[in-house]
Amino acid sequence: MNTAILENQMVERLARAFRRSPGQMNRLNESDAEIIRLGTNGTRLAVTTDSIVEEIASGLYSDPHVIGWMAATVNFSDLAAVGAVPVGLLIAETLPPGLSEDFLSELQRGIDEACCASGSYVLGGDTNSGSTLEVTGCALGTLEGHRDLSRVGCRPGDLVYSSGLLGSGNAYAVSRFVASRARYPFAPAARIHEGQIIRKFASACMDTSDGVLTTLDQLMRLNGIGFQLDGNWETALDRSAVEIARQASIPPWLLLAGQHGEFELLFTVAPHDERELIARAAAAHWQPVRLGIAVPEQSISFELYGTSAHIDTGRIRNAAFEAHGSVRAYISELMNIDQELQRGDNHHDKQ
Amino acid sequence: MNTAILENQMVERLARAFRRSPGQMNRLNESDAEIIRLGTNGTRLAVTTDSIVEEIASGLYSDPHVIGWMAATVNFSDLAAVGAVPVGLLIAETLPPGLSEDFLSELQRGIDEACCASGSYVLGGDTNSGSTLEVTGCALGTLEGHRDLSRVGCRPGDLVYSSGLLGSGNAYAVSRFVASRARYPFAPAARIHEGQIIRKFASACMDTSDGVLTTLDQLMRLNGIGFQLDGNWETALDRSAVEIARQASIPPWLLLAGQHGEFELLFTVAPHDERELIARAAAAHWQPVRLGIAVPEQSISFELYGTSAHIDTGRIRNAAFEAHGSVRAYISELMNIDQELQRGDNHHDKQ
Repeated sequence: MNTAILENQMVERLARAFRRSPGQMNRLNESDAEIIRLGTNGTRLAVTTDSIVEEIASGLYSDPHVIGWMAATVNFSDLAAVGAVPVGLLIAETLPPGLSEDFLSELQRGIDEACCASGSYVLGGDTNSGSTLEVTGCALGTLEGHRDLSRVGCRPGDLVYSSGLLGSGNAYAVSRFVASRARYPFAPAARIHEGQIIRKFASACMDTSDGVLTTLDQLMRLNGIGFQLDGNWETALDRSAVEIARQASIPPWLLLAGQHGEFELLFTVAPHDERELIARAAAAHWQPVRLGIAVPEQSISFELYGTSAHIDTGRIRNAAFEAHGSVRAYISELMNIDQELQRGDNHHDKQ
Repeated sequence: MNTAILENQMVERLARAFRRSPGQMNRLNESDAEIIRLGTNGTRLAVTTDSIVEEIASGLYSDPHVIGWMAATVNFSDLAAVGAVPVGLLIAETLPPGLSEDFLSELQRGIDEACCASGSYVLGGDTNSGSTLEVTGCALGTLEGHRDLSRVGCRPGDLVYSSGLLGSGNAYAVSRFVASRARYPFAPAARIHEGQIIRKFASACMDTSDGVLTTLDQLMRLNGIGFQLDGNWETALDRSAVEIARQASIPPWLLLAGQHGEFELLFTVAPHDERELIARAAAAHWQPVRLGIAVPEQSISFELYGTSAHIDTGRIRNAAFEAHGSVRAYISELMNIDQELQRGDNHHDKQ
């Protein structure tokens, strides 16, 4: 039995009040976007909503272009993870009084440019006046073909890939909160085109919006399997991200643990599909990054401090939830977990 | 030239940054919901987003069931106004720490029950932690047939109808802010079924989410026409709403002017379609309420204080925008306008 995930429990509690649509094809938590079959002609839609709230309140995002860019990207990334083609974005903004013209135009430009990067458009929106800035996006896409891609479907033996190098999201957070001297750029593009290839071959897919270990943990729980990362997992980290961590004395593996993800797609592929996937990716000038393999045992492990460490990813996920917005408390708990791993406390702490 | 509408100017300024999707069939402000043609097979979607923010901050809504109900209804009402059949709702919630279990479950129940009243479902959502409660909905529907219904298409001579009696939204606001002794129930249902009949006959349609005079003003500007209400316009007011206004010494016509609408559909119909509309409505046990007629002159007029008063609806709309959330300042300005009308200052104040 793994540590229960507080955030999942809250989502389940909130969702319990709602009846489920007969047109909805995914179950709760099993897909990055909701998959809806339209009654009329079999068209399937992917829809998702995601807000930028805590990121602004904590100071993680303060640049208006970053806020706008991310409000669009977090939603398109969910569409990418189900292999959808974006149709457009709705945007609801709560604007505090006295925002400058410059701030507003940078915010809007960030939204529009992220839509453009995903080959999509703002369709409409709503504007409200309120005490704190909040931006909520809602993205809409279509699903082609008959093959469904969700978080569920992975089996032991499947190979785990990322759509790109990892760690930039948490390196950005480190640059904002720990090593404030460093200025680290952050403008991830949703992996729409990669999602189109992935949907043809992958057994499961999820974006790393909440960090790599959270993503692996969620896939582990949903599929009843575990993951073992390859011995050279550090080569999957973005070099500039590792450099930012090094400067701030943050151990590199915490770039996988932190909750501010890089918005890559993390996906699994059956061994017999791997070759074709790689060939199609190469034809699209894209190189997926191999991370490891799915294993029968429900645990996430990788080489760390000279041993094969089993990581309590449930504890790591709950640390973010329990910090109640205190960045300091959250980083402190992650550093505690690292200390325990360095001392070797973890070898038998799986429940 | 009518008074420029500050809110429209802001929306246009915010939207200017955005490229427009080639699949989008409506222009800015010309439709209650965005109309999108899907490339694949001609399916048309209606999508809209609307948040409950100011209504909570001002104290207009404090009951969690009302907040949840309205977060869903404001969005479904936009679908109703374009004649769409709802597919579902996404909901993004910002929850302050320490909300009680009871509060949360009433909030969720309100959302679910309003979905049920519109024959629809919550499809998914996002939850964030933040300093103030905010609820954003995003509703999705399909459009059948080939006839489009929008805010544009009305001509002089067309008859103006409401889907129901008017004034309940502003009576609720009066009960909250002026006559706090009275408890006035407010749980409007989106006029989904009525929208299905209206879309076959109406020349234009818009919901009264921002009040009747705001709706007439917007239709006036978009269509280059005006409206003259029938001499017996007071019979279109809900009796219990008039009673609440009377108790608070608020003149009944302000039930049309206030910005907290009743979420009826206000629509126009060409004279030769009126009979068929009324017959179809009667067959559905629905009785539309006739309000007046569209006229060539861009002005909104009705009998008031013994004269045919031309109302400066632009000034009324801007009063809400310029009050910056001060309910007292807003009501005071509306009462000023009423005083001027009583004195007869308005006879020649059209610009």
